[in-house]
Amino acid sequence: MDPRIREHAQVLADAIDLSEGDNLVVKSEPVADDLVVAIFEIAGDRGANPLAVRTNRGGRAIRGYLRAADEADVEFETPPHEQALVEAADCHIAIRADENVTELDDVDSEVNSAYQQAHSPILDERLTDRWTLTQHPTPASAQLAEMSTEAYENFVYDAILKDWDEQRAFQEHMVDILDEGEEVRIVSGETTDVTMSIAGNPAINDTNVHNIPGGEVFTAPVPDSVAGEVLFDKPVYRNGKEVIDARLVFEDGEVVEHGASKNEAVLTSILDTDPGARRLGELGIGMNRDIDQFTYNMLFDEKMGDTVHMAVGRAYEDTVGEGNEQNQSAQHVDMIVDMSEDSRIEVDGEVVQEDGVFVFEE
Amino acid sequence: MDPRIREHAQVLADAIDLSEGDNLVVKSEPVADDLVVAIFEIAGDRGANPLAVRTNRGGRAIRGYLRAADEADVEFETPPHEQALVEAADCHIAIRADENVTELDDVDSEVNSAYQQAHSPILDERLTDRWTLTQHPTPASAQLAEMSTEAYENFVYDAILKDWDEQRAFQEHMVDILDEGEEVRIVSGETTDVTMSIAGNPAINDTNVHNIPGGEVFTAPVPDSVAGEVLFDKPVYRNGKEVIDARLVFEDGEVVEHGASKNEAVLTSILDTDPGARRLGELGIGMNRDIDQFTYNMLFDEKMGDTVHMAVGRAYEDTVGEGNEQNQSAQHVDMIVDMSEDSRIEVDGEVVQEDGVFVFEE
Repeated sequence: MDPRIREHAQVLADAIDLSEGDNLVVKSEPVADDLVVAIFEIAGDRGANPLAVRTNRGGRAIRGYLRAADEADVEFETPPHEQALVEAADCHIAIRADENVTELDDVDSEVNSAYQQAHSPILDERLTDRWTLTQHPTPASAQLAEMSTEAYENFVYDAILKDWDEQRAFQEHMVDILDEGEEVRIVSGETTDVTMSIAGNPAINDTNVHNIPGGEVFTAPVPDSVAGEVLFDKPVYRNGKEVIDARLVFEDGEVVEHGASKNEAVLTSILDTDPGARRLGELGIGMNRDIDQFTYNMLFDEKMGDTVHMAVGRAYEDTVGEGNEQNQSAQHVDMIVDMSEDSRIEVDGEVVQEDGVFVFEE
Repeated sequence: MDPRIREHAQVLADAIDLSEGDNLVVKSEPVADDLVVAIFEIAGDRGANPLAVRTNRGGRAIRGYLRAADEADVEFETPPHEQALVEAADCHIAIRADENVTELDDVDSEVNSAYQQAHSPILDERLTDRWTLTQHPTPASAQLAEMSTEAYENFVYDAILKDWDEQRAFQEHMVDILDEGEEVRIVSGETTDVTMSIAGNPAINDTNVHNIPGGEVFTAPVPDSVAGEVLFDKPVYRNGKEVIDARLVFEDGEVVEHGASKNEAVLTSILDTDPGARRLGELGIGMNRDIDQFTYNMLFDEKMGDTVHMAVGRAYEDTVGEGNEQNQSAQHVDMIVDMSEDSRIEVDGEVVQEDGVFVFEE
């Protein structure tokens, strides 16, 4: 097997601090078999108990299940056996690995939503344990990224297998700036100029723990503070549809105007989900420069060097300071602004990044 | 996909009476993906909750785990998360599907035994639910059977997808004979002549319930009653080794002499496991004539038409009548006698099968 697969498995095991006696659940698909084998080797080495389970977020099996359940008008429930498994587990590795990224294309999206909703207590339970999420490079993901399979493999492993001590130190500069700052302004070309308060909300240094690859610094805006407009340069890929040139205008934290040059209705339906879906839940700074191209995969895209992203919807609990409001929503949709040219990030009026170069790099 | 795979899945779902709200665990390997997809479709149709889990009895992942655990001197334990899963499940489909039937060849067999031993409470728990075990035809299994992949697929599906009402009726004749009889004598050529009491022990009509394919009628001998000698015509395949021409001589139910023309040591180690391993735990009559060749796979071989098999070791509880002794052992090793030529089965002195033809077929 490609030796980088074993290195990838080590990164995953370290991310969850896999240790003797740990009851580990590996969620995967058949196409990621090599990575599962490599994880099992490490589990044996460390004396952990691995169990490999199929994912329920994609793939042929769940497609077949959901279409048949739709036809039979099944009411989904939280499966007690899967819940019992997750409750008794100590740690989790979730591997995204697609044979066909559009496998759920002919599943009714409401049926899939209802199914995922029924499974959400299981996901919530998993989030209370040690967990990490990663991507195994497959031909289908390479195709989505418009790359050859080998080039995509190189891209994935370059983003994951790097000097993370160095990367952590690099990102820590940005954490310090955000933690000390109160107001952030993002300017890009003539189309994006938005300000928001982050006062009291901690910034997180994301370096290969819950997401592999890591490579972002993120926090939550104070919900009502967001004002201005943003044109998102990178497409928003949602349920197999691309929203191009998404544009949001904020007043008092709320989206009061929106548009897109393609699939605007998808954007509208996201914003109309609930009141929290019209407000920001995240501001993130992408700092993993080995991610140097957009691949239609948010696990990578949001960490791309020289980008920022904002998410409408739910804010992560650990990015909300005591006494501050945590934005609530069923949505959390990240959208990306390119900051490499004619752009700047200001914190409390000082430029901290200009045209993709941070002030601490000079 | 091959339409027979969906038919196979229906047989499996029917075997466990898969119903609305059932929490189903499907144990499988990546190579059986089509069959898993087909089972998930039926689960959706019936409103059951399917979860697919990797097997721990073979394959690359468990090999990697066991070798690493051996190196690290791990003490195996019963994994509580897997146990919680099985306790909360209602029914189970176990699919054997090998990419390489000798995948565990370089795993220390004692290490594997210790691991399986630690998992035995999970297996025991599973046996208290509705369960079934089957085989997905793979190129590796075809190779073991010395057949082309397509011919092997035909063989497997012919054995599984047949008129089971007719087969059940055919086998029921033999059940009636055994249930009414007390003493069975098996004679084949000059080399096999053995008698045993089955008085009070019920015969089971095995037709696609716990084993898919089914196709045998079996009961337990009264342990002390077995006397005579048996030459097993078909090889005993054990941990990758073939015992050829295994021969057992019984006195008062116990093996007092044994031999083989190849790998006699393997046979000796089986018999030496514990006192119960020197006594018979099963007498079975193979009656599935679509299984017309030996394929080194006991799930099929023991149901082969015109054969009988005897197992040294543990007797199944449901084949032991009230007040009769149930033979206990950590072993249960089936061995096969060809009954197609110069052979007969007698019950209470009456010939019930001669040269493979049953008395109720005339």
